[in-house]
Amino acid sequence: MEPNVSNSSDHQAVEIAMETEVHRVVSPPYRSTLQKLRARLKETFFPDDPLRQFKGQSGKVKLILGAQYIFPILEWGPKYSLTLLKSDIVSGLTIASLAIPQGISYAKLANLPPIVGLYSSFVPPLIYAVLGSSRDLAVGPVSIASLIMGSMLRQQVSPAKDPILFLQLAFSSTFFAGLFQASLGFLRLGFIIDFLSKATLIGFMAGAAIIVSLQQLKSLLGITHFTKKMGIVPVLTSVFHNTHEWSWQTILMGFCFLVFLLLTRHISMKKPKLFWVSAGAPLLSVILSTLLVFAFKAQNHGISVIGKLQEGLNPPSWNMLHFHGSYLGLVMKTGLVTGIISLTEGIAVGRTFAALKNYQVDGNKEMIAIGLMNIVGSSTSCYVTTGAFSRSAVNHNAGCKTAVSNIIMAVTVMVTLLFLMPLFQYTPNVVLGAIIVTAVVGLIDIPAACQIWKIDKFDFLVMLCAFLGVLFISVQEGLAIAVGISVFKVLLQITRPKTVMLGNIPGTDIYRNLHQYKEAVSVPGFLILSIEAPINFANTTYLKERITRWIEEYETEDANAKKKSGVKFVILDLSAVSAIDTNGVSFFKDLKMALEKKNLELVLVNPLGEVIEKLQRADDAKELARPDYLFLTVGEAVAALLSTVKSHASNYV
Amino acid sequence: MEPNVSNSSDHQAVEIAMETEVHRVVSPPYRSTLQKLRARLKETFFPDDPLRQFKGQSGKVKLILGAQYIFPILEWGPKYSLTLLKSDIVSGLTIASLAIPQGISYAKLANLPPIVGLYSSFVPPLIYAVLGSSRDLAVGPVSIASLIMGSMLRQQVSPAKDPILFLQLAFSSTFFAGLFQASLGFLRLGFIIDFLSKATLIGFMAGAAIIVSLQQLKSLLGITHFTKKMGIVPVLTSVFHNTHEWSWQTILMGFCFLVFLLLTRHISMKKPKLFWVSAGAPLLSVILSTLLVFAFKAQNHGISVIGKLQEGLNPPSWNMLHFHGSYLGLVMKTGLVTGIISLTEGIAVGRTFAALKNYQVDGNKEMIAIGLMNIVGSSTSCYVTTGAFSRSAVNHNAGCKTAVSNIIMAVTVMVTLLFLMPLFQYTPNVVLGAIIVTAVVGLIDIPAACQIWKIDKFDFLVMLCAFLGVLFISVQEGLAIAVGISVFKVLLQITRPKTVMLGNIPGTDIYRNLHQYKEAVSVPGFLILSIEAPINFANTTYLKERITRWIEEYETEDANAKKKSGVKFVILDLSAVSAIDTNGVSFFKDLKMALEKKNLELVLVNPLGEVIEKLQRADDAKELARPDYLFLTVGEAVAALLSTVKSHASNYV
Repeated sequence: MEPNVSNSSDHQAVEIAMETEVHRVVSPPYRSTLQKLRARLKETFFPDDPLRQFKGQSGKVKLILGAQYIFPILEWGPKYSLTLLKSDIVSGLTIASLAIPQGISYAKLANLPPIVGLYSSFVPPLIYAVLGSSRDLAVGPVSIASLIMGSMLRQQVSPAKDPILFLQLAFSSTFFAGLFQASLGFLRLGFIIDFLSKATLIGFMAGAAIIVSLQQLKSLLGITHFTKKMGIVPVLTSVFHNTHEWSWQTILMGFCFLVFLLLTRHISMKKPKLFWVSAGAPLLSVILSTLLVFAFKAQNHGISVIGKLQEGLNPPSWNMLHFHGSYLGLVMKTGLVTGIISLTEGIAVGRTFAALKNYQVDGNKEMIAIGLMNIVGSSTSCYVTTGAFSRSAVNHNAGCKTAVSNIIMAVTVMVTLLFLMPLFQYTPNVVLGAIIVTAVVGLIDIPAACQIWKIDKFDFLVMLCAFLGVLFISVQEGLAIAVGISVFKVLLQITRPKTVMLGNIPGTDIYRNLHQYKEAVSVPGFLILSIEAPINFANTTYLKERITRWIEEYETEDANAKKKSGVKFVILDLSAVSAIDTNGVSFFKDLKMALEKKNLELVLVNPLGEVIEKLQRADDAKELARPDYLFLTVGEAVAALLSTVKSHASNYV
Repeated sequence: MEPNVSNSSDHQAVEIAMETEVHRVVSPPYRSTLQKLRARLKETFFPDDPLRQFKGQSGKVKLILGAQYIFPILEWGPKYSLTLLKSDIVSGLTIASLAIPQGISYAKLANLPPIVGLYSSFVPPLIYAVLGSSRDLAVGPVSIASLIMGSMLRQQVSPAKDPILFLQLAFSSTFFAGLFQASLGFLRLGFIIDFLSKATLIGFMAGAAIIVSLQQLKSLLGITHFTKKMGIVPVLTSVFHNTHEWSWQTILMGFCFLVFLLLTRHISMKKPKLFWVSAGAPLLSVILSTLLVFAFKAQNHGISVIGKLQEGLNPPSWNMLHFHGSYLGLVMKTGLVTGIISLTEGIAVGRTFAALKNYQVDGNKEMIAIGLMNIVGSSTSCYVTTGAFSRSAVNHNAGCKTAVSNIIMAVTVMVTLLFLMPLFQYTPNVVLGAIIVTAVVGLIDIPAACQIWKIDKFDFLVMLCAFLGVLFISVQEGLAIAVGISVFKVLLQITRPKTVMLGNIPGTDIYRNLHQYKEAVSVPGFLILSIEAPINFANTTYLKERITRWIEEYETEDANAKKKSGVKFVILDLSAVSAIDTNGVSFFKDLKMALEKKNLELVLVNPLGEVIEKLQRADDAKELARPDYLFLTVGEAVAALLSTVKSHASNYV
């Protein structure tokens, strides 16, 4: 990059700058270490200042506000009206029609008895209605958390050989997932889920959707001997090594219902007003297919069915939780992974719809609500639940107003559990497979992937790693790799901060990047650099080398242009240096020493509060914080330094 | 924090701002993805541009420069003169007198035969003289790497029961340390050692010095049954449970020599010109104590001696390297940890003295030199070596000019190995212990610790963790904890970036932090925020919440002050936002939408090249990158927006 050295406009700039007086850099008002620590802790854990509404209120009001804070139902409950109820009944019934077939299907995806999926659509929505602050979230089991729980537990326990133990481990994992979620919220550590970036999630979701869909080949093709593994390779091997098990009746039925479901999905996507088409399709498919099987006695012709389901509400399951023994590590790990994943989905869904309806969702509070819902769920025969994206979208489109729609859904599921279970006896597994495939197909978001490619190539790489990692390694490792790369990128940005050379925009005292602003000109004798990151242990070595190279390059160019001026001043614009540490303080000291050996003067511009404070506190860098080394703007620094040079030069005349 | 709302000076500011024309933000010139990738890779791996001297040279010159690049000796060798040699002989002999007793002592610290310490002071300095680019580095075994190697290997193999295997593992670890060091340099990944911050190193060094000194209680007190563990607790237990083994002759001798050595150290520290006092003291102590033992036959009175040492130069040891088998993991891990630690010391020492003499040391090249030195060393009976701080300081003070002083030292050690080994037979172990304690005492840097406490409390915490971790857990885990906390701090800074409210400095169009600059005043109707970190996945949620809170606080204050104005514009100063990712792009889009719902207008000021490029590339954030939403300075933004408001207002008049 060649700086455009120009003399004429330089003088102009200087004149403008010299008209204004020089303003001093000041350090921020004194705060003790304790005050700083408190401010830092508050910013870290309470950035949303959740208690601000309590300030200056009387004791009684505080009590009411506190109760409303813990149980949001107390806030909207008293204002609830019949009009709202009407809307909520419509949306509640709509999501129930989706929740019943999806509940059964997702439970099968997690290798659990189908009825557990229905249990999980009954208790958790009731809990959420009391504790949750989102008005649109439809709570229940979700595909990805079901997949992860099923695959992680199956690595150590076979659901076919040891179904009771498997169920116990599933409930225990749910308990730990809930405990973990609630703790994150309670300890205000919700920002941990932010480390799953958008790119990571898009790649991960797409990979998981493919894995889930491949698993459905078992029921869609009617294969009885299917691999227990999740990876794309073993599944495809299993499918094509067992072609003799393929059942044409199953394939035909599966194909028809899959086409039907995908078609309804397509219609609803094209016309959001017809949301009920895709919302009602799964239940219709279940009813139709069950009737078909019943009429043709198809279960005797190679079509496998769910079989008898027990009637009645959720039995208690707290006696089934494992808090010790050899599987404790497994259930804690499974709880952690499913907890984070389902939390991410629930929070993201809540925030999305809150933004659409312009209300606030408190992330940490939601985490406590979702966590408690899972803790209670684990002792009432439910497995991991959260706010599901597809069902919440239907809920929103169906015009839900409050969490009462969740209550309506739960009541509908209750009625089903009490009286309608025998009807599901002949429901074929193949239709459940088709429902799952249709549900997860929407997780593959190709336009978003293209958008990421356009905006940020590195994010695309992260997405690709998550996607391929999930497909070829495993769900949890794919996720870990993607998070690792994202964090690595952030660290790399810190390790290699940008330093850009600034030049004057003619006719102003504005100084901007010479590379970006082609009209900007460099001021002869001045090397003006802007450092664009906190200066800390990870980058001081780099910055020293880089600044040395800037000086050498500048001097080489000057020598090539046969100018005798050379650099006299190095101005560091610190406007973008938000923090320094002890290594950063040493950096300034060392840099000043190194520049002095080359007869260059170092001047700092606009150091922020923390930077100037630390420089002043260091015994051997104090002189850098002296007023004559500090300027408020680059323009003032250039003007002041030029005037000293001129007064020196005039002595020789 | 209360913004000082003032109307009179506000008008002044606006008038100044309105005098100058409005300047547009432009995006940087187009570069293809490949060009960007190349630039990024260059900044990451070649920030010092090591090949710039090759540019535009003829083939022959390139060849010579290339050879000089790989073997720095070719660069300074031809210019070598007799005057330089004289200085180098003096300094070479001085460091040899230090290297011989230290070599023997450090080998014992690593649980290796004393002679290995001398071998390691012979071959590696010769290799370094050819490959190294530092003129002051004195190469040989060092205390901390010796301690770590000894303690890590001893966890699995007993040096007393299985000395041959232990030696084999030590050489193998040295090989892997060298391989790792050379790879880091070759792959240009040298910045990895930067993650050991100054604070981490100070804490770590102090902890290690105490651990090393405690180990010396064995020889200083003459205890025969000593613990094999490193921690402070087992060592002290061992010392006070074996009081009956304490030998008063040993204690007396140890005490006298320790006082003598510490005294000489103190003298040299007070008067750097008397550096030879402390440099010569260890050798003098060895000679004196050996004579004493010989004269009084003290080995029969409870004073343990080194015993017979084999004469002759380094035997080959490449047949002793383990590249497979059950200990491979152990030697690789030991190699990694000792490699990183010794590399950190070597590079830091090289850079320190290079800065004093104003020449350049290429970090990655040095890593290759140190790595090759250890690889060659491992096959010639040497264990891990690097540039030692204490010896290099003596070398520098003794007036060394080039790496020839290392050659002189190696020759002196060679003479010792060939002819003087029988003299060490009666050297008592207690004097070696005293030499080690004196050497490591200097690693405890209390003034630096105080300085860190003054400058940065978080760095002090990191230092404390490293110190206590080394003392109470283990050397490598203490280090890992400190690095983990340092990285966590950096991530926390990214996760919770500072957002500050800017105000106008009266009489200028400069806008600065209202909290830091008390004279600054806020402009009514404008909320001007500066974001001081890259905007990415880790902080978009936080920033959304934080900005919402800023707006609410601003409005509450306005309401309290009974102003009707309220916020109309939110100006985000992006000067300090060095990068964004896809989450960052969504952040701007979401924020704009949220503000529009509140009837607020979002305006961006001075987005840097990367930020504006990405906003333009995103389909749904493009309008944010439209010229009328972008301003070059806050002053211009305020002026332009105020004039639109005025023109609106005048319509009502």
